[in-house]
Amino acid sequence: MTTMLAHPERGEIRIAAVLQALADPVRLEIVRALARCEDGISCGLLDLGITASTLTHHVRTLREAGVVWVRPQGTSRISTLRRDDLDALFPGLLDGVLAARR
Amino acid sequence: MTTMLAHPERGEIRIAAVLQALADPVRLEIVRALARCEDGISCGLLDLGITASTLTHHVRTLREAGVVWVRPQGTSRISTLRRDDLDALFPGLLDGVLAARR
Repeated sequence: MTTMLAHPERGEIRIAAVLQALADPVRLEIVRALARCEDGISCGLLDLGITASTLTHHVRTLREAGVVWVRPQGTSRISTLRRDDLDALFPGLLDGVLAARR
Repeated sequence: MTTMLAHPERGEIRIAAVLQALADPVRLEIVRALARCEDGISCGLLDLGITASTLTHHVRTLREAGVVWVRPQGTSRISTLRRDDLDALFPGLLDGVLAARR
């Protein structure tokens, strides 16, 4: 089954929602992992020491804010960072977040 | 009375706290206003259509996260953006946030 998940269009992405989505240590870890892997990552391969349902919750928050794309692939879901959209809307934001040591 | 307010040192500023502080439409308005006025702004001169106590709350959140300096000046408090610290820690972040149209 390949249910398409809802994503905001680029023009619907709001800075406050993006910041809110990024303002969490676990979600920052997810974003850092996705930044290292342009082809995307299956949630099942993200080893963050949290339960699958917690991970799903965090990825949904990122998806709904417009930070990540999530596409079904077989029985997995592959997440990728919406770098083009974020860089176009908020140039520098993502690089600044990724540069943070803590 | 010139009570000094607590501020995190640069090395104590955390990205998640900064993002959380910025992830609010009113606080984003405050940050945009401060970015336009390098010399700082007295809270009393910020006209955001909110009560003084609500404004105080938001400025405190920004101060505690390390986004603004707040210094007493007579009976006023002058807020300035910690642009140097934020640009050093998270290069691009503030520019990206300020570039956001919404």
